[in-house]
Amino acid sequence: MPIKCYAAFKAKGQLKEFCYEPKALGPLDVEIKITHCGICRSDVHLIDNDWRISKYPLVPGHEIVGIVAAAGAKVKNLKSGQRVGVGWQAASCMKCEWCVNGEENVCNDYQPTCVGKFGGFAESIRVDNRFAFPIPVELSSESAAPLLCGGVTVFAPMRRHGCISGMKVGVIGIGGLGHLAVQFAKALGCKVTAFSSTPAKEREIKGFGAHHFVDSRDINSIKKQERTFDFILSTVNVNFHWTTYLNALRPNGKLCIVGAVPKLTGITADALISGQKSLVGSAVGSRRVIQEMLKFAAKHKIKARAEVFPLSQVNAAIKKVRTNKARYRMVLCCA
Amino acid sequence: MPIKCYAAFKAKGQLKEFCYEPKALGPLDVEIKITHCGICRSDVHLIDNDWRISKYPLVPGHEIVGIVAAAGAKVKNLKSGQRVGVGWQAASCMKCEWCVNGEENVCNDYQPTCVGKFGGFAESIRVDNRFAFPIPVELSSESAAPLLCGGVTVFAPMRRHGCISGMKVGVIGIGGLGHLAVQFAKALGCKVTAFSSTPAKEREIKGFGAHHFVDSRDINSIKKQERTFDFILSTVNVNFHWTTYLNALRPNGKLCIVGAVPKLTGITADALISGQKSLVGSAVGSRRVIQEMLKFAAKHKIKARAEVFPLSQVNAAIKKVRTNKARYRMVLCCA
Repeated sequence: MPIKCYAAFKAKGQLKEFCYEPKALGPLDVEIKITHCGICRSDVHLIDNDWRISKYPLVPGHEIVGIVAAAGAKVKNLKSGQRVGVGWQAASCMKCEWCVNGEENVCNDYQPTCVGKFGGFAESIRVDNRFAFPIPVELSSESAAPLLCGGVTVFAPMRRHGCISGMKVGVIGIGGLGHLAVQFAKALGCKVTAFSSTPAKEREIKGFGAHHFVDSRDINSIKKQERTFDFILSTVNVNFHWTTYLNALRPNGKLCIVGAVPKLTGITADALISGQKSLVGSAVGSRRVIQEMLKFAAKHKIKARAEVFPLSQVNAAIKKVRTNKARYRMVLCCA
Repeated sequence: MPIKCYAAFKAKGQLKEFCYEPKALGPLDVEIKITHCGICRSDVHLIDNDWRISKYPLVPGHEIVGIVAAAGAKVKNLKSGQRVGVGWQAASCMKCEWCVNGEENVCNDYQPTCVGKFGGFAESIRVDNRFAFPIPVELSSESAAPLLCGGVTVFAPMRRHGCISGMKVGVIGIGGLGHLAVQFAKALGCKVTAFSSTPAKEREIKGFGAHHFVDSRDINSIKKQERTFDFILSTVNVNFHWTTYLNALRPNGKLCIVGAVPKLTGITADALISGQKSLVGSAVGSRRVIQEMLKFAAKHKIKARAEVFPLSQVNAAIKKVRTNKARYRMVLCCA
């Protein structure tokens, strides 16, 4: 039966209703009846063809929660009726050294959920069951959907780079990713400073668990943080005072970039060499880390603050993302 | 007795003979009769006041080898007549968390050997004995001197970032630091590719242990290395194709900067995020790592290729460094 969805038909275009005939359900596939799908800034980049990889019609959506409606003959760990989530990645080769090592997110042949495939702004989707993850009962579907991409994108680097209780963590940009990063860092036991260009959000941001708030437009306030942080996570996608943030790190500290900034300008070698700092990138997370993140979120009551729109109002929801009006993640209700 | 040395009296000036009265020998100090001192590019930066920290008269020199001539009352591990070396760092607070953890090189109050102090282009120097290291008998003084700064600067990050046998390592820039990096990486068992802008050096560079040579002026040759290296060390101090080198890393790979590039231009977040790469800085090395490096160099016959000039010809030697004519490290004979 054809799958109803919303697609962009040209770069920067409005989304319109669309239908496609899914491929046959493979032995390892599940069909998921989608109930919720978050809107990530990457969806907007794909709609706009910012990365020169988009093909139209393009169905965005990679923060999916729904119910298993059918399972292929070889699916062992999921069954019909079960609630699952799917994130940025829908498949990988499962054979290369990275897949074998449980790092499917850096597999050279990985398949994104909505690039070269129709994504989650839809009533259903078919994916490899190994990239569909049970959602813990403690989490509502609307607050869980953004965890599948946004949540793991901020959680994975904190885990990989060893953020533990007592450390000082900074989060730059408190939007869809940042408001989750604050919650995860707080739950890990870190002392959290939020850097935001919107002082009006300060109270809400402290509600997410931030101990300190710094106005990121005020470079002198950032300069005062010199030699303070063990780890700073940047979720922003505009140019910033990178060297000033590097100077805000303690020796051996790391500035981790997860926001897709076109150019990281103004970085001096000296800012890296003095105190041997690192500028690191991180790309979503492996299957293991996604599952660890979901359990951690359930235990620590970490939830995306979701603003829910029906799928039919997808263009209005996207507009809120484009204009930075989302508080804090737009989620489509697809059921 | 006054110490004879060579000093710059103004930024970019020629060095001239100079004498100074040393401070009294403290209980933890040693006086070293200098026999050899390497010329590091940092010495040239200091002479030129490129870092806005120079005070004149300025006596450069921080790759020192010599003989202990006198030892303070509390010096236990060194004795007169012993051959020792001193590098970039001459003291640290020995109390902060970094010093306690054996990371004196990132102590906030560390004392460089020739900034705010008279350095090694001299007949003698007095330093804290805890920053003077016995030179293994296998190493000649002239080939050991450049190890004290240049050697540890390239060895420490390879150790910290886990370069081991079987890994693929790239070295960008095969000069004073780079020719040592090639030797250390080879001795660690790594497969070594040298990126150099001087194809005429290819044969010599392979003699240092490089398995492959790539002309760093030919961006297409660098592009062919995509997804190849576990670790790339950059010793150059000019702008380069940073994103191309990041793309030459395997997933989780690291590009380590030890050359003082004024601005790291053209780096995109995507080059860090895809394959979760890191751009890392490294600053000389701790006391432990310096000693480890010296033992490793002795065992594996790692030697600086030194061109030795008498101290009286210091200006001619500096000119060779300034014009990139040094093959591969200029060393002053001070005895």
